[in-house]
Amino acid sequence: MALSGFPELLPQQRFVEAAVIDRLRRTFELHGFAPLETRSVEPLEQMLRKGEIDKEVYVLRRLHAEDEAGDSGLGLHFDLTVPFARYVLEHAGHLEFPFRRYQIQKVWRGERPQTGRYREFTQADIDVVARDTLPFHHDVEVARVMAEALASLPFLPPLRLQVNNRKLIEGFYRGIGATDVPAVMRAIDKLDKVPAEVVAQQLISEAGLSAEQAGQCLALAQIRSVDSSFVSAVWKLGVAHPLLDEGLDELAAVIDGCAGISGARIVVEADLRIARGLDYYTGTVFETRMSGYESLGSICSGGRYDSLATDGRTTYPGVGISLGVTRLLMPLFQRGVLTASRTVPSAVLVALTDDDSRPRSVAVATALRARGIPVELAPTAQKFGKQIRYAERRGIPYVWFPGKTDDDGGEVKDIRSGDQAAADPATWMPPTEDLQPQVRFEKESSLAQDS
Amino acid sequence: MALSGFPELLPQQRFVEAAVIDRLRRTFELHGFAPLETRSVEPLEQMLRKGEIDKEVYVLRRLHAEDEAGDSGLGLHFDLTVPFARYVLEHAGHLEFPFRRYQIQKVWRGERPQTGRYREFTQADIDVVARDTLPFHHDVEVARVMAEALASLPFLPPLRLQVNNRKLIEGFYRGIGATDVPAVMRAIDKLDKVPAEVVAQQLISEAGLSAEQAGQCLALAQIRSVDSSFVSAVWKLGVAHPLLDEGLDELAAVIDGCAGISGARIVVEADLRIARGLDYYTGTVFETRMSGYESLGSICSGGRYDSLATDGRTTYPGVGISLGVTRLLMPLFQRGVLTASRTVPSAVLVALTDDDSRPRSVAVATALRARGIPVELAPTAQKFGKQIRYAERRGIPYVWFPGKTDDDGGEVKDIRSGDQAAADPATWMPPTEDLQPQVRFEKESSLAQDS
Repeated sequence: MALSGFPELLPQQRFVEAAVIDRLRRTFELHGFAPLETRSVEPLEQMLRKGEIDKEVYVLRRLHAEDEAGDSGLGLHFDLTVPFARYVLEHAGHLEFPFRRYQIQKVWRGERPQTGRYREFTQADIDVVARDTLPFHHDVEVARVMAEALASLPFLPPLRLQVNNRKLIEGFYRGIGATDVPAVMRAIDKLDKVPAEVVAQQLISEAGLSAEQAGQCLALAQIRSVDSSFVSAVWKLGVAHPLLDEGLDELAAVIDGCAGISGARIVVEADLRIARGLDYYTGTVFETRMSGYESLGSICSGGRYDSLATDGRTTYPGVGISLGVTRLLMPLFQRGVLTASRTVPSAVLVALTDDDSRPRSVAVATALRARGIPVELAPTAQKFGKQIRYAERRGIPYVWFPGKTDDDGGEVKDIRSGDQAAADPATWMPPTEDLQPQVRFEKESSLAQDS
Repeated sequence: MALSGFPELLPQQRFVEAAVIDRLRRTFELHGFAPLETRSVEPLEQMLRKGEIDKEVYVLRRLHAEDEAGDSGLGLHFDLTVPFARYVLEHAGHLEFPFRRYQIQKVWRGERPQTGRYREFTQADIDVVARDTLPFHHDVEVARVMAEALASLPFLPPLRLQVNNRKLIEGFYRGIGATDVPAVMRAIDKLDKVPAEVVAQQLISEAGLSAEQAGQCLALAQIRSVDSSFVSAVWKLGVAHPLLDEGLDELAAVIDGCAGISGARIVVEADLRIARGLDYYTGTVFETRMSGYESLGSICSGGRYDSLATDGRTTYPGVGISLGVTRLLMPLFQRGVLTASRTVPSAVLVALTDDDSRPRSVAVATALRARGIPVELAPTAQKFGKQIRYAERRGIPYVWFPGKTDDDGGEVKDIRSGDQAAADPATWMPPTEDLQPQVRFEKESSLAQDS
């Protein structure tokens, strides 16, 4: 009954997903991003303006609609950028600009399911949008915020947030005399998938470059650095163009602005191969690779739009970045390297001595919950051994045995160590790490070295 | 560009919705309910087995699907119960029973939009499901948990969680000699909408009752109490049936079990009119009314299913209750009585003295965020008066003016009071109520008395 492309999680996996989303939310809100949601549907004509993804949209039809033709003219949104642009135009009169929002929602694409591609999946987007002009420092801001958000997920494999700049590469291509810049970008964008020689051939045959020009483009694409040393590496290629200078300055500002976040878990680096071929970015561009999972492609991408939205009179420039939450987590679940420490929120199972003393068990549970400790009651008054196994099967770390009188708090047992001691439900507290289910990353032997 | 039936929230409204969902989650998890999600789509044949809601389903079609007929055979789920039942059957081998889950997701219904009815809306469901048998005390549990969850939303108008029991009313109807019990329930279910005389006529003409029997049914339906005194009120009607006794015991147990939660904000009461006509409940049933918003109907409903799901060999009984989050909040937003104290998460705006000192402003912001204070930076180095107005427009309570040197923390101003004082970004903390946007309920004159 499973549907290909519509993944569903088991409870312990869903805990991981919820923990990831909660940590993302926390970082986004610390930086002043507001928690927006848009409706799940958009008018088809609006979604298909850009034309390239029309095969991927799910169209809605009301079953037994009065109109036999049936289609509602609505489709499920396939990303969170198009709906956000529409939302900004629709509600501009009620928004304060620059407007920062994060949006964590499901999106749908009718494409053929394959590794890392789903028909229903969750994205987490942040964007800053302004009216008329958006200062460049917001490019640095969204990079920092997403890098911090990813750094707050220490159970993920190491990540590389790769940054480039369209002005930089366009300036470079113009500087060497290329005339069909989009064709150059499309060819360079394939470097992930095809050998450099093939890309060189395409640069010559499709973008009209000479062999020497093609070589310069490939030399540029090989430059990467975790600091602003990429700037001198580009200078050494001996190409000059005003747009190139502007792009170099901007990219250096993003990389310098993210210094201090880079570490063992996340690296922010300039990677001059990143082009994001088909998207309408006009400056900074982002992609993100996960170590050991390179075949997924980018799990977190975005960039600067000089015109995120426009109503003809007013233009709204924006910069944003979108994290594929499902794309990130599903492969980790499938390889079995990411799970939670238990299948229920409960830190404590309150045992039931017999049916008559149920109110005493309820009182213990109520006292613990009042101080924020998740608790469940044993469902039946089985032998204590069976109640302990009930807790074990769910990963609940503590079993509480109520006392024989209302004044006797009873005893609490850590079923992992077997330690048991008298305790007062009005004051007892488990260690913080036992309070909520913990996310666990278990290294896979062959992949642990891969990073 | 707004689409009827697909509501969207402004940022300050979305804060309220997110706060509501966070509080619900917290209560559900304190009681051991795990955070499940199911995919948004189900095969049509599965969703339509019960037959009655087939007009309301949105069917999905891939645009330009290879198959010109087009339909994917999938529809968007119209509630969270049908998908949960399917999930339990599909994953039974990986679940531990009794299985408690909460599920907060969007659902879709293609019905005509009207007050309280949407085409896309959010529900928050809790259910407990077991294999083969589910002890009755779980009925008390879900009532308590939902009542506590609703009590954690002190900014809502007063709520009445109304409980009844199908065994009670069925036993009563059988006890007076009714033969077509479903017809009696359908008639009684209309008491909300039509006068008692009309219901009496229907009981006679459609359920085949005598005038005296109809009178007894209406007398039963008028009984309500916030404690178990309803039991003696039923006895006084002089009807006897074993099923009636069983239902009275169960309903009294739910009402007694919720004692201590009832208060000014939420009342849990036995209301013997509640029947939930078309649903397949077999024992406890729940509805919930919001004071001043009675025309919405029930905003939180549910009950006990002896067979939530079955695969032919194994039966899974369940008990659950579903809160209509959108149905609850939208009318409050529309009347303007519920809002948030600001439009951004930021508690502090760090001012920008000039572009050169931006790093000093960034350092202040970073120090504050490190201790969990949401902060944004002024976007440009305008005059301080303009920066303060920037904060005012967003409802940000504090503006921080960085010092002139790295050793000088600067000063922080509460822009509501105008108080300004020197402060250290490494130790300063706003009052807890300023840390996050606060939900505000503003009483409407005419409605405040209505409760």
